[in-house]
Amino acid sequence: MNDSKSGQKLWAGRFTESTDEAVERFTASVAFDRRLAPYDIQGSIAHANMLCAAGVIEGAERDAIVSGLEDIAADIAADAFQWSDALEDVHMNIEAALTERVGDAGKKLHTGRSRNDQVATDMRLLAREEIDAIGECLRLAQTAILDLAAREAATIMPGLTHLQTAQPVTFGHHLLAWFEMLARDAGRLTDCRTRLNRSPLGAAALAGTTFPIDREATAAALGFDGPCENSIDAVSDRDFCIELASACALVMMHLSRMAEEIILWNSAQMNFVTLGDAFCTGSSIMPQKKNPDVPELIRGKTARVYGDLMSLLTLMKGQPLAYNRDNQEDKLPLFDAIDTAKACLRVFAGLLATMTPNREAMHEAALKGFATATDLADYLVRKGIPFRDAHAVVGRAVRQALDTGARLEELSLEALRALEPRIGEDVYDVLSLEGSVGARNHPGGTAPAQVKAAIDRARTKIGE
Amino acid sequence: MNDSKSGQKLWAGRFTESTDEAVERFTASVAFDRRLAPYDIQGSIAHANMLCAAGVIEGAERDAIVSGLEDIAADIAADAFQWSDALEDVHMNIEAALTERVGDAGKKLHTGRSRNDQVATDMRLLAREEIDAIGECLRLAQTAILDLAAREAATIMPGLTHLQTAQPVTFGHHLLAWFEMLARDAGRLTDCRTRLNRSPLGAAALAGTTFPIDREATAAALGFDGPCENSIDAVSDRDFCIELASACALVMMHLSRMAEEIILWNSAQMNFVTLGDAFCTGSSIMPQKKNPDVPELIRGKTARVYGDLMSLLTLMKGQPLAYNRDNQEDKLPLFDAIDTAKACLRVFAGLLATMTPNREAMHEAALKGFATATDLADYLVRKGIPFRDAHAVVGRAVRQALDTGARLEELSLEALRALEPRIGEDVYDVLSLEGSVGARNHPGGTAPAQVKAAIDRARTKIGE
Amino acid sequence: MNDSKSGQKLWAGRFTESTDEAVERFTASVAFDRRLAPYDIQGSIAHANMLCAAGVIEGAERDAIVSGLEDIAADIAADAFQWSDALEDVHMNIEAALTERVGDAGKKLHTGRSRNDQVATDMRLLAREEIDAIGECLRLAQTAILDLAAREAATIMPGLTHLQTAQPVTFGHHLLAWFEMLARDAGRLTDCRTRLNRSPLGAAALAGTTFPIDREATAAALGFDGPCENSIDAVSDRDFCIELASACALVMMHLSRMAEEIILWNSAQMNFVTLGDAFCTGSSIMPQKKNPDVPELIRGKTARVYGDLMSLLTLMKGQPLAYNRDNQEDKLPLFDAIDTAKACLRVFAGLLATMTPNREAMHEAALKGFATATDLADYLVRKGIPFRDAHAVVGRAVRQALDTGARLEELSLEALRALEPRIGEDVYDVLSLEGSVGARNHPGGTAPAQVKAAIDRARTKIGE
Amino acid sequence: MNDSKSGQKLWAGRFTESTDEAVERFTASVAFDRRLAPYDIQGSIAHANMLCAAGVIEGAERDAIVSGLEDIAADIAADAFQWSDALEDVHMNIEAALTERVGDAGKKLHTGRSRNDQVATDMRLLAREEIDAIGECLRLAQTAILDLAAREAATIMPGLTHLQTAQPVTFGHHLLAWFEMLARDAGRLTDCRTRLNRSPLGAAALAGTTFPIDREATAAALGFDGPCENSIDAVSDRDFCIELASACALVMMHLSRMAEEIILWNSAQMNFVTLGDAFCTGSSIMPQKKNPDVPELIRGKTARVYGDLMSLLTLMKGQPLAYNRDNQEDKLPLFDAIDTAKACLRVFAGLLATMTPNREAMHEAALKGFATATDLADYLVRKGIPFRDAHAVVGRAVRQALDTGARLEELSLEALRALEPRIGEDVYDVLSLEGSVGARNHPGGTAPAQVKAAIDRARTKIGE
Repeated sequence: MNDSKSGQKLWAGRFTESTDEAVERFTASVAFDRRLAPYDIQGSIAHANMLCAAGVIEGAERDAIVSGLEDIAADIAADAFQWSDALEDVHMNIEAALTERVGDAGKKLHTGRSRNDQVATDMRLLAREEIDAIGECLRLAQTAILDLAAREAATIMPGLTHLQTAQPVTFGHHLLAWFEMLARDAGRLTDCRTRLNRSPLGAAALAGTTFPIDREATAAALGFDGPCENSIDAVSDRDFCIELASACALVMMHLSRMAEEIILWNSAQMNFVTLGDAFCTGSSIMPQKKNPDVPELIRGKTARVYGDLMSLLTLMKGQPLAYNRDNQEDKLPLFDAIDTAKACLRVFAGLLATMTPNREAMHEAALKGFATATDLADYLVRKGIPFRDAHAVVGRAVRQALDTGARLEELSLEALRALEPRIGEDVYDVLSLEGSVGARNHPGGTAPAQVKAAIDRARTKIGE
Repeated sequence: MNDSKSGQKLWAGRFTESTDEAVERFTASVAFDRRLAPYDIQGSIAHANMLCAAGVIEGAERDAIVSGLEDIAADIAADAFQWSDALEDVHMNIEAALTERVGDAGKKLHTGRSRNDQVATDMRLLAREEIDAIGECLRLAQTAILDLAAREAATIMPGLTHLQTAQPVTFGHHLLAWFEMLARDAGRLTDCRTRLNRSPLGAAALAGTTFPIDREATAAALGFDGPCENSIDAVSDRDFCIELASACALVMMHLSRMAEEIILWNSAQMNFVTLGDAFCTGSSIMPQKKNPDVPELIRGKTARVYGDLMSLLTLMKGQPLAYNRDNQEDKLPLFDAIDTAKACLRVFAGLLATMTPNREAMHEAALKGFATATDLADYLVRKGIPFRDAHAVVGRAVRQALDTGARLEELSLEALRALEPRIGEDVYDVLSLEGSVGARNHPGGTAPAQVKAAIDRARTKIGE
Repeated sequence: MNDSKSGQKLWAGRFTESTDEAVERFTASVAFDRRLAPYDIQGSIAHANMLCAAGVIEGAERDAIVSGLEDIAADIAADAFQWSDALEDVHMNIEAALTERVGDAGKKLHTGRSRNDQVATDMRLLAREEIDAIGECLRLAQTAILDLAAREAATIMPGLTHLQTAQPVTFGHHLLAWFEMLARDAGRLTDCRTRLNRSPLGAAALAGTTFPIDREATAAALGFDGPCENSIDAVSDRDFCIELASACALVMMHLSRMAEEIILWNSAQMNFVTLGDAFCTGSSIMPQKKNPDVPELIRGKTARVYGDLMSLLTLMKGQPLAYNRDNQEDKLPLFDAIDTAKACLRVFAGLLATMTPNREAMHEAALKGFATATDLADYLVRKGIPFRDAHAVVGRAVRQALDTGARLEELSLEALRALEPRIGEDVYDVLSLEGSVGARNHPGGTAPAQVKAAIDRARTKIGE
Repeated sequence: MNDSKSGQKLWAGRFTESTDEAVERFTASVAFDRRLAPYDIQGSIAHANMLCAAGVIEGAERDAIVSGLEDIAADIAADAFQWSDALEDVHMNIEAALTERVGDAGKKLHTGRSRNDQVATDMRLLAREEIDAIGECLRLAQTAILDLAAREAATIMPGLTHLQTAQPVTFGHHLLAWFEMLARDAGRLTDCRTRLNRSPLGAAALAGTTFPIDREATAAALGFDGPCENSIDAVSDRDFCIELASACALVMMHLSRMAEEIILWNSAQMNFVTLGDAFCTGSSIMPQKKNPDVPELIRGKTARVYGDLMSLLTLMKGQPLAYNRDNQEDKLPLFDAIDTAKACLRVFAGLLATMTPNREAMHEAALKGFATATDLADYLVRKGIPFRDAHAVVGRAVRQALDTGARLEELSLEALRALEPRIGEDVYDVLSLEGSVGARNHPGGTAPAQVKAAIDRARTKIGE
């Protein structure tokens, strides 16, 4: 232990050669796992308190350990801690520093545990905290969506399927679809949080320990719902990393769809929205350019989270139990998936707040593409024509309109009656955009009244 | 509609050319989406009943539709239904057959809905049923694990980390780690089921419909917990496919780890288990071979489910709302992930039932590799030596044993005392395998008594 | 062997139990590996000829084998061959049929080989043939691109970056970018073909064989460039599957980009192209819809090839040498990647042939968005202003135009001179679309003359 | 430009608001794309020289630019360059610094180019250099393999298929399979290098430029084989990133298989090799542990390169041409794939150099598992029995040996003759391990003489 400064490993007893320097660099994880330090120290304090309560260490030793760890935590927070690659990882760095500061008591901290249960505990504590943080970011984005939807509850735009004009919808209604996507993300994160919230401590290397430990106590002290059921599973399990990365991948998939829509809406040809200058950048060569870099980057960053998920799945495939060093590679992809999701959600919320809909352009676009053709078919159904026949009649009307370059509502009553004599003067009511959206007046439908009610329910859901 | 036999599409009204034949083949999905037929018919019956209750169709029409659909369902179940590629997909095939059988009433079925909400409903109904089926398969595998664990609760084997001997564990304890892995899988499936159990019906193309539909009624009739909140989201959302494929990927990841262990245990060098002849195959060239094909294939099939998940994530990336034809590609990967998970779980349960542990080989192996070195360190701690110093002392003892080719328990008391004078005669008790496993006697630990208690809890958990 | 009808395996000698029926279903591959049959028979004929030349079998035996195999090939081609799951795979099915037809000679065919080198040979022969077939499809698509580019060499459209108007380009020039993408694909396939074109035959199970085989002879007979260098590698290597799937993934990535562009161009808002009715489909609910299903499906099918590649990579990760049964799972993803790439390329070629550019809409769009701003900056540079300063001047001109709703060329000379006095009357020449594209007159540039020259080079490249 | 210090963007002319600070952080790439600096400067020098030769800038300006860039390069190399996030990326940082140092000449450097062709050039230059570096690492690893294979050309070990004893092989022969895997990797890298070695310079934003540039000249100056054919493709294409990442993924797949084998060989149960202490680490809790961390980490790091590849593929899927900001995300995964492959190859070479085969343990293991059963079948074939019948006879012999716990060569001649009377005394020759490996004496076979010849060919291949 005293040798730690000279680079000798804490486990060096049975070795005859010291670690190759290139190997030390290759295997060291402290450059990235130091992010676990606060959780590592929380876990160690809980462990020390339990060891003391169980009579394994003395009260004075416990006190020394706890205050030593608190000092170290403060140093780390203040960026005043000296990390060493030779000490391999965050755990060994902290343990070595502790022993240096408090002497023999430090050497007792590792009684009844192993780095295997220790790192599993650290990772779960981090994942739990980050789930809450992503949840906050989701709420930020959801709030931005609802604020915009509230302003645009009655704004008419062309609803698209296959990127073709389908039916008129309200912009507020469209935005609420985004809200629902993120609401499912929040649900997945909550489920993941519940499932991971068990304490690995006490699993030690893989088999448990011979000391009279109290696993319930350490679990409770760390806010876990209880200990992991099986010690071998406790040190082998990385499901929570994969499940969390998968939840982040879905967040990013959703954001990529929203980003794609914003990029389309912002194109010269659609021109449905104007993005704030503060969220765009220019070109080094083309002086006129104002590029939607933020949604493009969000779309692009989806790729990295997909890659992170694929990494984690690949990592675990075919690994025999219990712990293998492969698992060191669980950290960077998980951290990256978390950080990317948080950053993208936050910047997305800001982007929405500065995005201005061009209501006229939206309305103008909705007038094209025969958006109310379905309304005409529905009208015919109400006149007693089976839907499938009505659909065919309207198809012919559309073809006629296409040939003459007219809109549906520009066809004369005679022309319409030639197609189907049951059509009356009242047909023009259903062919208006306002009539069309107003008529879809059931829960989940696009009528402005429904949109407003849905916004209210949504605000309640996220606890506003 | 009458033209359906001649290959004219139900939507052909506005078209001037018919579909290119190669395009028809390229776009037709009926070869695989016919699997949705039972769900499609369930959904259509619920929709027809609702339309009738809402006064949109007559009672007699409803009756004709329902009995026509039931006939079709029977024909499909009896493999007596004539599927047509020219009719594109399962929905159009069934609707065309219905109209052919019941006339105009059939043409009214599509009132107030679209293939967009229809297929989303079908997919959710299928996913829900398959989740239950995978759950059954999980229970099968878990039961096989528990039965084996019960027989082997006290069987000692070397617990491995880094594929190196770590500490002795009981085989039953190791198997319970497998149980926990599958228990989390079951939890994820349940969460996915809850989240997907909302009805898209009523969303129609994307905006809802102008008819006085009752979305709560169709939702209830189909066993959903309620309707989807937003119509655009209802037709765009494929989260449930990805979440289910992700849950299947984790199932497979777990099975791949178990399979890897069985392959290792079954190797000539480990020889910890013997697989039943019925679960192995031979070689075309080497007459002595008995290959563990089943676990190898399970390990290999993990790859396809990972691929399925990656497909689904890629599919949805950057898709603008609402429905795009890309989504036709959601079916095969989801079906494949489901089927692979079910088949592998089932065959895995059978494999376990015919797998015989070679207890002597396990015990013999546990004697090698200094498996009780940690017990010796713990012993020293109880003699008052700080753990980190105790670890170093034992490291030196191991090195000495390695040099002389002895086991730890074969070192003489003098030799041990030369390393640390506080060692007494009682040290040999902690160096035995039985002493080691028995001493890890806390919940989650490997002691046989703990294993038995854990099996009881596990049986309760899966409702045996 | 006589027992093959009764379901006994050809390798059953050392087994005491027969294969579990569920296991048989789980492990059987004949449902999909029968696609290898023609290659398997080619390989067997080459092997039999070599065995005869080496004196291992008699001439009469060789003749019986060869004619038996030819009969079987004919039956398979005529779909008159009885495949059996109980015989596991394509190899055993064919060998059993051969022995049934020609007796003892059939039992000698497997001398000096194993299914391990046999399947590796089959897979390489299939991959080689499919590479050629994909190459043909690439050429089809490239030809369709060149034909369209030739017609549109001088058609002006807005070149987009960030989906924003960047600079005017010719449509032909844009299409040539597509050509280049596919040209790289062709190069990758050629490289893959060269690398895989080595014969595994003679590797037998993994170590080679004790018979006096002539590996050069079988390699030459099968059109390989020579035998694989190392027998263990020959049976373990599946690089060629991954490399080919990776090449297909790049093909699909390219097609997905082209498909995305066609979908955008075909949107109501852009309206740059009109797709043939024969390549579109309608909606079950919206009578006016004409959806670009073909490019959407191409974009969607990209996902499955990505999934196939990920499957193959996952499959091989961490597999110890030599052959493991996991590798049975190499077939479906490879076949799927190949078939998807071929089908998409073919239908894409057809799509292009029926796609009509709307030249006016393109030209109109190019007039918006200040597409010639860079030309103005370049003009200023030629007047002696450093480019970075010129860029800033034009930026201010654009802001002014934006504020007044004017195009750049609509700004008065006074207004322009107020920004930069060195601007002269000749500035309006560089602000025209034709002037802009014509000025980019260097190899690879968008000037119509360059486009035509590039088309000529491209036609030469693909051997037209 | 003078404003660059105050954070104003070089493209800010047409903007009315400055970039949001969070957006600046979100979009800045200089933290990672500064790795491109040396290539960026090379490219700029070539561009400046060409501009001067073309008469676009003066000789004095060119000189100022070149010497300014060289100064900057020196500062960057000495870590004395002040990078600024506000200047977005490596290109703008360097251009701003240049103008600050050399004044107006610096503002002229960007004449006739864009960041779009600039970054594409930088990335290709980096990729080319890194391919050469990976090639060097491959050769390192191949040399380590050959050195070990040369020492172990005649060492007998059990060849495994399905992790079951198959046939005896020589360890040297097994290692040569590894050599072949890496040889294919080298080939893929070379092909990738050839394909990417074209210059994007001159493509400018996407359409080429109005200045009289000489694309051949810049291509030649930078060691490219010529310019990219099409300007839009030149700025859109990231195939080379994907192809290189794919090649790295295959390298890692190969290393993961080798690592898996080393981990297995190093297990207590196999004990075929001993790893150097310098390449292993210990346990924090178990004093006896010596873990094969290096091969485990190599196996684990495979996952990240697979993830990198999936990221890059996802990134490009469905992107419309030409450049989109998504592409900023091409850098980290490519860099990570390159760095991981290089580091793993290097440490793997070191690992092999310190790995000691335990020849006796290998030989002992080869004696088990009836490794020479195929030799017995081959013997029977030479006695005139068809191979398939011979296989069945040996299967029964193996079953008999299994029942009595004997090895094949321990069965008495009577016992063997009872199975097949044509067996003679000479059968025991073919049942020896040495006889078995010696008999596989054809190119690619495992006979020591063949292994030595193969090593010679291999050394020639890598130019030793």
